[in-house]
Amino acid sequence: MIKLYDEALSGNCHKVRMLLSFLGLEYESVPISVPDLEHKTPEYLAMNPLGKVPVLEDGGEIIRDSQAILYYLARKYGNGEWLPEGDAASGHVMEWLSFAANEMIHGCAMARALVLFNREGDRDAARALAEQCLDILNGHLEGRDWLVGTAPAVADIACYVYAGLVHQGGVDPLTYANVAAWLARVEALPGYVGMAALPAGDN
Amino acid sequence: MIKLYDEALSGNCHKVRMLLSFLGLEYESVPISVPDLEHKTPEYLAMNPLGKVPVLEDGGEIIRDSQAILYYLARKYGNGEWLPEGDAASGHVMEWLSFAANEMIHGCAMARALVLFNREGDRDAARALAEQCLDILNGHLEGRDWLVGTAPAVADIACYVYAGLVHQGGVDPLTYANVAAWLARVEALPGYVGMAALPAGDN
Repeated sequence: MIKLYDEALSGNCHKVRMLLSFLGLEYESVPISVPDLEHKTPEYLAMNPLGKVPVLEDGGEIIRDSQAILYYLARKYGNGEWLPEGDAASGHVMEWLSFAANEMIHGCAMARALVLFNREGDRDAARALAEQCLDILNGHLEGRDWLVGTAPAVADIACYVYAGLVHQGGVDPLTYANVAAWLARVEALPGYVGMAALPAGDN
Repeated sequence: MIKLYDEALSGNCHKVRMLLSFLGLEYESVPISVPDLEHKTPEYLAMNPLGKVPVLEDGGEIIRDSQAILYYLARKYGNGEWLPEGDAASGHVMEWLSFAANEMIHGCAMARALVLFNREGDRDAARALAEQCLDILNGHLEGRDWLVGTAPAVADIACYVYAGLVHQGGVDPLTYANVAAWLARVEALPGYVGMAALPAGDN
């Protein structure tokens, strides 16, 4: 069975949980405690030398990085969905996977992590980049339902999660009208699963 | 003809120049002056709202982001080379494209930019991440000629450029033996092109 090395509050892990659910795939969630540094043990680093969650294990193959896992799962199990066909559309999906790996992480995810996990770092800089990310998404979504083509793709999942969670970092994505409509569109997809609720007192 | 919106000292542009050369594709280089903010004009932002080089134009399609462009070119023009087949190998390529989009940029490319372009930022933090990137590449390349499978792929080009240029940021990649051998292997490929020389006094 597919194993997901998983951390409940990680948005990167949640990207993978979402696609596994959309694809109707059963999997075993192996909890990795970040506070206990279980992502830095020799055994974990042998799977992912970056020491980050998530990692996917499937039939002896180990895939790290949420974008790579989304791509792998869609290619292997997507039956032609989640990865639009054609050279240009494939290139556009890759644009958004890079955006999810870089700008969304250093903007939206970082703004959230600095508040939620009380990490050290520049909150203003992270929020400014988060706002720039939301601006770019909002502009691109003008007149579009999905980031690439006319159906939801791994590009949407990769960008959705931290766009949806950035309010926990003090930036409200719902003030960006096209982003707000797109977040709602993702959340209305059959099989959508939300993040686990935070402990009371957080949001 | 393919157009590359190009900046001579940009490693991200150089990734694309390398693959265009390996594939034997003719193209027009459209110089974009970063000091003159030509990557922030309304016309340029309409092509790439991130305001970054490179951008590729091919038959009316606009593709931004060096990783996305590598993927697009290899898929369209690679004749089965540069993108290994199979779900797992494709997933592994994506792991390194994410690594190139995130860690290599914030480590190796940033360490170089802070010195070479005299940008403001934390040189020690960038160098520490650059060293971590080289460590990860070095460990992965133990017993391997290429990052994924047994032939060069877009993964290698995406990671090669800033691994090769990070000495300009004060980190010597040649002290990592497997990285040094892999850099030399890339540079020995037929069609390899190097970066333009820096003005005298720089390196």
